[in-house]
Amino acid sequence: MKTIEALKWRYATKKFNPNRKISAQDLEILRKSVNLAPTSYGLQMFKVLEIENPELRAKLKEASWGQSQVTDASQLWVFCSYQSHNPADVIAFSTRKAKVQSLPSENAQKYAEFVNQSLSNQPVEAFQNWTEKQTYIALGGLMIACAELGIDSCPMEGFSADQYDEILGLSAQNLKAAVVVTMGYRSDEDTTAALPKVRKELSDLFVAV
Amino acid sequence: MKTIEALKWRYATKKFNPNRKISAQDLEILRKSVNLAPTSYGLQMFKVLEIENPELRAKLKEASWGQSQVTDASQLWVFCSYQSHNPADVIAFSTRKAKVQSLPSENAQKYAEFVNQSLSNQPVEAFQNWTEKQTYIALGGLMIACAELGIDSCPMEGFSADQYDEILGLSAQNLKAAVVVTMGYRSDEDTTAALPKVRKELSDLFVAV
Repeated sequence: MKTIEALKWRYATKKFNPNRKISAQDLEILRKSVNLAPTSYGLQMFKVLEIENPELRAKLKEASWGQSQVTDASQLWVFCSYQSHNPADVIAFSTRKAKVQSLPSENAQKYAEFVNQSLSNQPVEAFQNWTEKQTYIALGGLMIACAELGIDSCPMEGFSADQYDEILGLSAQNLKAAVVVTMGYRSDEDTTAALPKVRKELSDLFVAV
Repeated sequence: MKTIEALKWRYATKKFNPNRKISAQDLEILRKSVNLAPTSYGLQMFKVLEIENPELRAKLKEASWGQSQVTDASQLWVFCSYQSHNPADVIAFSTRKAKVQSLPSENAQKYAEFVNQSLSNQPVEAFQNWTEKQTYIALGGLMIACAELGIDSCPMEGFSADQYDEILGLSAQNLKAAVVVTMGYRSDEDTTAALPKVRKELSDLFVAV
């Protein structure tokens, strides 16, 4: 069972080999896994910034408690969720949906109105928590996609979203850094790779009701 | 590439076959996928309630805008995240970690103190958002594990967390319903199964910086 094998193989990589890069072909698969992840209503209210510029990487490392993965990993992806509701995003989605699924345009318009109505009733903070959560679904799938390709990864919450905002100019784009993923290949010196996983007993995690 | 195939195969199932059940063997694999999902610090601050009681299912359906998946799907799993920080949870984790990874107990104690310090500084609402997000990582992996086994699933946010709380007595257990997943096998009548997926262009979702 590939998913279980992938989940067992992966670990939160602490030290990457700075000289090994993920191939363009594998990167395209990883991007597809994110794009195919389910999101609420299918809206995909986030962007992924792929940070390549070494100077930006160095600044972001400082904004991430100096964690070496930010500069050493082959890839640094910053999942940025939308910060406020813009009805145009929903209209764009429902127009795309109508086209792809050959639906009458009236249906698309009605659906957009329904979703926009429901989103406009949300307080802004609830909206932000909700869009952030959507990026975590994609994150869960991405970790598995990486492992299946033999690619190491480290999901990271230990960063200052405010400093990321400042360095990357996110608010001006209606974005906020929700979660960061570094990906590449482990360094031989990463001693944490050999540590056994720590997990609850299934009977502690699952309760039949 | 199994992950991509799984993500392409899956869809948010609207109508389940109420007569087809997931085997005990497959259920154990699905539980393992949730248990192996990464979580922040490895703390796994959630429980999954597997709702089997038909009367509870009927009540929860009402609290889920009448969606038929809640009663018709083979499984109804309610991901419930912890609502407030209890230092004992972190101590239990670090004790388990020390045992599994053969670490000195002083290290475990220091680590628990560090994590407890960092969590006790969080406002309760931030804590709740954070534990909720962790369940979405597991959700992302679970959808892939299901698809790989040919099991249909539908992640659901359309429910009243307050009513779930009341029906399942969650607050008394320091829990809150974060997200719901129904799993089983699609009904032949689910016409949404044939609809093509609607996704952004990769160039709209990913931005190189």
